[in-house]
Amino acid sequence: MNGAESLLATMVASGVGVCFANPGTTEMALVRALDAVPGIRGVLGLFEGVCSGAADGYARMAGQPAMGLFHLGPGFANAVANLHNARRARSPVVNVVGDQATWHRGADAPLTSDIASLARPVSRWVRAATSARALAQDAAEAVAAAQGGGAGVATLIVPSDCQTDEAGGPVRPVAAEPRRAVPGSRVEEVAAALRGRSRAALVLGGRALLERGQRAAARVAAATGCRMLSECFPARQERGAGLPRIERVPYFPERALASLAGLEILVLAGAAEPVAFFGYPGLPSRLAPPGCALLMLASPEEDVEGGLDALADALAAGNPAVAPARRVDMPADGPLTPDAVGAVLALSQPEGAIVVEESGTTGLRYFGPAAASPRHTLLTLTGGSIGMGPPCATGAAIACPDRVVVGFQGDGGAMYTLQALWTQAREQLHVVTLLCANRHYRILEMELARAGGAAGPQALGLTDLSRPPLDWVSLARGMGVPGTRVETVASLREALGHALAEAGPYLVEVVVA
Amino acid sequence: MNGAESLLATMVASGVGVCFANPGTTEMALVRALDAVPGIRGVLGLFEGVCSGAADGYARMAGQPAMGLFHLGPGFANAVANLHNARRARSPVVNVVGDQATWHRGADAPLTSDIASLARPVSRWVRAATSARALAQDAAEAVAAAQGGGAGVATLIVPSDCQTDEAGGPVRPVAAEPRRAVPGSRVEEVAAALRGRSRAALVLGGRALLERGQRAAARVAAATGCRMLSECFPARQERGAGLPRIERVPYFPERALASLAGLEILVLAGAAEPVAFFGYPGLPSRLAPPGCALLMLASPEEDVEGGLDALADALAAGNPAVAPARRVDMPADGPLTPDAVGAVLALSQPEGAIVVEESGTTGLRYFGPAAASPRHTLLTLTGGSIGMGPPCATGAAIACPDRVVVGFQGDGGAMYTLQALWTQAREQLHVVTLLCANRHYRILEMELARAGGAAGPQALGLTDLSRPPLDWVSLARGMGVPGTRVETVASLREALGHALAEAGPYLVEVVVA
Repeated sequence: MNGAESLLATMVASGVGVCFANPGTTEMALVRALDAVPGIRGVLGLFEGVCSGAADGYARMAGQPAMGLFHLGPGFANAVANLHNARRARSPVVNVVGDQATWHRGADAPLTSDIASLARPVSRWVRAATSARALAQDAAEAVAAAQGGGAGVATLIVPSDCQTDEAGGPVRPVAAEPRRAVPGSRVEEVAAALRGRSRAALVLGGRALLERGQRAAARVAAATGCRMLSECFPARQERGAGLPRIERVPYFPERALASLAGLEILVLAGAAEPVAFFGYPGLPSRLAPPGCALLMLASPEEDVEGGLDALADALAAGNPAVAPARRVDMPADGPLTPDAVGAVLALSQPEGAIVVEESGTTGLRYFGPAAASPRHTLLTLTGGSIGMGPPCATGAAIACPDRVVVGFQGDGGAMYTLQALWTQAREQLHVVTLLCANRHYRILEMELARAGGAAGPQALGLTDLSRPPLDWVSLARGMGVPGTRVETVASLREALGHALAEAGPYLVEVVVA
Repeated sequence: MNGAESLLATMVASGVGVCFANPGTTEMALVRALDAVPGIRGVLGLFEGVCSGAADGYARMAGQPAMGLFHLGPGFANAVANLHNARRARSPVVNVVGDQATWHRGADAPLTSDIASLARPVSRWVRAATSARALAQDAAEAVAAAQGGGAGVATLIVPSDCQTDEAGGPVRPVAAEPRRAVPGSRVEEVAAALRGRSRAALVLGGRALLERGQRAAARVAAATGCRMLSECFPARQERGAGLPRIERVPYFPERALASLAGLEILVLAGAAEPVAFFGYPGLPSRLAPPGCALLMLASPEEDVEGGLDALADALAAGNPAVAPARRVDMPADGPLTPDAVGAVLALSQPEGAIVVEESGTTGLRYFGPAAASPRHTLLTLTGGSIGMGPPCATGAAIACPDRVVVGFQGDGGAMYTLQALWTQAREQLHVVTLLCANRHYRILEMELARAGGAAGPQALGLTDLSRPPLDWVSLARGMGVPGTRVETVASLREALGHALAEAGPYLVEVVVA
């Protein structure tokens, strides 16, 4: 057994079943090992950002870590943007990055570079392997580092000779650092602060937005009158019929400040303190109102679900009935405004859908109506690095082959990682991409306007995707994904209904009014 | 004048005329400044790797530095792969990367990350700006660092408040470190070594592959009988009718070893010592034969053109006549083998073409016949990071609007940065992409075969781009570039002739036999 085989066998023993790969010459032994080691499936992406985003999406949905396989520094660099999102999502992703043979690094061949320096900004754990015999242990520790309370991205750099040299067998999995329990004293402190204080809110993040956390939070809210908020960009939120209504901290700081105004207590439950996405002149970094107390019930590393249960118990809270969310009406036929697109999707999506939302400005109008949709899972743009949607949808579909995945996707972001469509076609995944083509970087137009004064032609040109217009139906066809273009509510309903009912990938280009 | 305006005005004064941009919120002041400051043109790419590769291509051709504009760590990370190629090409590229406002970094907002750690592996100079008033000087020093003898990539990280705060005016350009002259003693030493020794070769790299260096090298070769070799992946080589015939150090180490066998002296002229691209078991890193003397005439940082002239003078070498290279015959009509594709291009390309070659295995058959083509410029994959071709062609076309650019491009690499086609359409550049679709990562199939033993289905699957086949005509159309698919020599000749004669971008999908 060579080093590559011992690495993969250890990965499999540690619960890794899928390898999202864009390999090169220095990873050939690992590629060959995919056939020698049973239990791991290689999924090819034609650009590394597809693989890293798919690993993130897979990890968010699968409950087990995903592996990415990359080719030296430049190949890894292409994966970094979506690893940044995975880092912010705390997704258990293990990167294996091939490197020059240990004895060849000093020759400074053209592809040689400092991989670790590229890896550190997105990884909580980085190691460069030094021998084939230690590689299995390296792999086990990488998987452990990616999981548990401090879950995130782990990166193992593997020189090609460490893959090809003789090694021992695989090693046993290394236990991940467990999620720490929330101390009872902290639960009591939060309970005491909340009792009789209605100008309070829970800010839910991470696992608090799965069903168990939400139900416990709803008990707390019913007992104390506090509000329930979610962090602005959740990695994964269960939503829809039967689940409590949770507000989202707004994206723009003015709206977030207005939403949080008057609060006296913010209880952080698996979420960080709300901060502005960007620093704007005259607006604060931190969004809680002055004088508002910030109490941490559970950090993102801790057992927030247990903490919320304990808090509800400490408050002797009952199990409140969840009032059904109001269903929006199906919009009348007409042009596809953002409101209309959001409503049509919310009213069309089937039970159990996974909705990957990276639609920028259009998607804001979907969140509200979707509260009344059948039960579904929402994945969002945790790290703000666009181009996450199509790969994340791809990985989610690999993790959950029995669920339909909807990519609610803006055109600007989709262009970063459109190669994901090819992997969707190759693997015949049931991913329906609702490609919202407003043909602008609309968010940047809003930012230009915020900055005040008329923008000039060069500035406006840099936000304009309409010269020439992108033809998404052709782009999808070029990668083996069928599609259609719609410009009215009626045609969107028809196309979406058809795509949701049929297996395989499909793209609906939504020309947004 | 704010910091952004003082930065751009200093860039313009320092000779920067084009900004390849994919900006976001933290670069809005720089985007606005493009209208306030005359003399700099913003060119939009829909993915950062397009911008960085275009900056590289522009810098290789323009004789002045190019600017890239990127959005925080993830946006910059998307640019890294092609910056790696620019680094190896020693192209003067200045990256400006927006960052969170200085007072907002501590909030650790979602897009915050360690940009400098991402920048260092590809940059010879990295600085994070700290105030608007110092920003003009930062910019002048960045441009200087990118030029001169140690030319390469310089990266300036600019927090958003340093862009918007009040600044002084622009500053004067900072002089780049000059290219050091080659000491006369070294010229004498090399001349003495070469006299009367015919088992010698010059290895030409960098500026030695422009016309002046080649003519001086040809004088040396005529006087001493030494061979002329070029580094395997030149940043820029002038080629074609009237220029001396220069061999290329082969890519695969076995062939390179065979090519260099028997040599007693290798004289490095602007090139590094020949090394293997990858380390293979049983093959050496360094390719010069045992006992071969390595003499450095000029390092890549030195004035290699002056050094070669001095060497020729020291050898009292005359000006040899250049024997015309043998023209290949136009292949008969039939399937498009790599030999046929290479011959058709070599025989069709017009005087003054710029050929960007990233076609992997197919392109090997073009280099020989192109020696007899009309004068042209060849740009190659200096750093081995694929996805360089379409962006590099885009930048070269912006630098040289009066020349036709041919992208001789493999399908695997093109998928990494296909978004460049949109910029070609938007700017109506005369770039003809000869998209060689062999529908495989053929080089990886060769590597799998080299490793010995039959590869399994998963390994073979990871080199296969045929399920589904990419439809490049649809992909190009989706981005506003017309195209056609050809499967025979006759149809390639016709399509290529048409595309070379007409203005604007065009893609020919060459189905390689």
